[in-house]
Amino acid sequence: MKNSINKKFTNSFQETLHERRSLLCVGLDPDLQKLPAELSRSVDGLVIFCKEIIAATREFAAAFKINFAFFEALGKRGWEALHAVAAALPDDVIKIADAKRGDIGNTARLYAEAVFRELPFDAVTVNPYLGEDAAQPFLEDASKGVFFLCRTSNPGSGEIQHFPDRTRPLYLHVAAQVREWNKNGNAGLVVGATHPRELQQVRKASPGLPFLIPGVGAQGGDLESAVCHGATATGDLAIINASRSIIFAEAGNHFAEAAARQAKNMRDEMRNFLLPERKV
Amino acid sequence: MKNSINKKFTNSFQETLHERRSLLCVGLDPDLQKLPAELSRSVDGLVIFCKEIIAATREFAAAFKINFAFFEALGKRGWEALHAVAAALPDDVIKIADAKRGDIGNTARLYAEAVFRELPFDAVTVNPYLGEDAAQPFLEDASKGVFFLCRTSNPGSGEIQHFPDRTRPLYLHVAAQVREWNKNGNAGLVVGATHPRELQQVRKASPGLPFLIPGVGAQGGDLESAVCHGATATGDLAIINASRSIIFAEAGNHFAEAAARQAKNMRDEMRNFLLPERKV
Repeated sequence: MKNSINKKFTNSFQETLHERRSLLCVGLDPDLQKLPAELSRSVDGLVIFCKEIIAATREFAAAFKINFAFFEALGKRGWEALHAVAAALPDDVIKIADAKRGDIGNTARLYAEAVFRELPFDAVTVNPYLGEDAAQPFLEDASKGVFFLCRTSNPGSGEIQHFPDRTRPLYLHVAAQVREWNKNGNAGLVVGATHPRELQQVRKASPGLPFLIPGVGAQGGDLESAVCHGATATGDLAIINASRSIIFAEAGNHFAEAAARQAKNMRDEMRNFLLPERKV
Repeated sequence: MKNSINKKFTNSFQETLHERRSLLCVGLDPDLQKLPAELSRSVDGLVIFCKEIIAATREFAAAFKINFAFFEALGKRGWEALHAVAAALPDDVIKIADAKRGDIGNTARLYAEAVFRELPFDAVTVNPYLGEDAAQPFLEDASKGVFFLCRTSNPGSGEIQHFPDRTRPLYLHVAAQVREWNKNGNAGLVVGATHPRELQQVRKASPGLPFLIPGVGAQGGDLESAVCHGATATGDLAIINASRSIIFAEAGNHFAEAAARQAKNMRDEMRNFLLPERKV
């Protein structure tokens, strides 16, 4: 992110979305098995793939999100690839480490170092289950953003997140706690597009908090309701993530052009769903 | 773990504890800043340190637990070091990846590949917040163990884990769900020694489940109550983790001997706290 030092993450987040005139987050989930035939199904092929996707879609993106699992599954060389791909992210977007880390304080401090110092990320996804002292090391640098899992997009997520019942579910408690933890103006929430009514509810309870909304595209979440419920009211902004539907838009050797077309379409569609006074 | 293939994790877990006559899990949290002066404060120094600790304490341990954060914080070379240290773990102990991963299904599958295929671990720690479909990829191979975070040892953990109130807290719901998820006989729970009453309560509700109990030593949990509440009843077994109090038992050049002494003491103490019929 440009000029992010000494600025609260929430402010740089909003500025970036306005400058980029986009709510789109491109998710890099580079499944080796799905690489286009022209690339080798190797760690090198994967790095080339990611770099080409970044170059093709950066014009339309406000953010890129790298899913650490796809790199960790490749062993030592995968971690090298993660560094190479992270280094290829442009500086005018929000760079998100989708690592979903979370551990007790002295350990969380090291995970924060890994994503913010060893790697060049502007923000990270964190699991809230361990409470504030575990969240604190991630939140310490006000210029770095922390998106806490609140209501995740997967089908079975209600099992824990709806506890004890739907009238006062855990995910609303988590949202309330995250607002308490947000002393530095750099906390945000992950709320899946696959639960539009709950997205609306969390947004109403958490005005002004940056939202990261996964689950549109391959997971079936509706883009219009993600925009309208996540980013409509004044001062509320969200980035909406699409991974597979963009990066694997086409399997052939025009994969990068296809990804660019899909990213442009999604960016434009999101803009159209915004109310006039909210246009980014 | 020896002979673990085609055997349910819970069975190999119990057998290993009986064979090793120990409940001790040695936690490798190798903080670069705390390495003994005789070793270089570098990735190479860290690998040597871990290997010497492993060699010195393996006689007394039933399990080793590697905390991924301490390696990730060192960047690319840290991940190489993680592979080197994991490869140095002996085959007659339970090798635990303390990674606290957790993500939606297609991503969880890759995290499971990372720890069970790219790395040689027998078990992993997983965050339960996303529900069963996210837990499933870790549980698929019955010979691999999955310790779900239930009641963590850190001071602020009650903020989320006691929700909505102490009479029916989230952590008991998580324990109940994990019992449901345990179709392959390979799920376990992480319950901190810093909450002895709650450890007792979770154990009562979850007979026969392997427990991983952190929080004794540097975090202040009491060893006797960890043993008595976690591992006393017939068929219930737990491993009790100590990290800093063992690996940094002494800062000088006799660090390995000091770690061995401390590991032996803890192993013996744990044995003494077991009822006669439960002696491992």
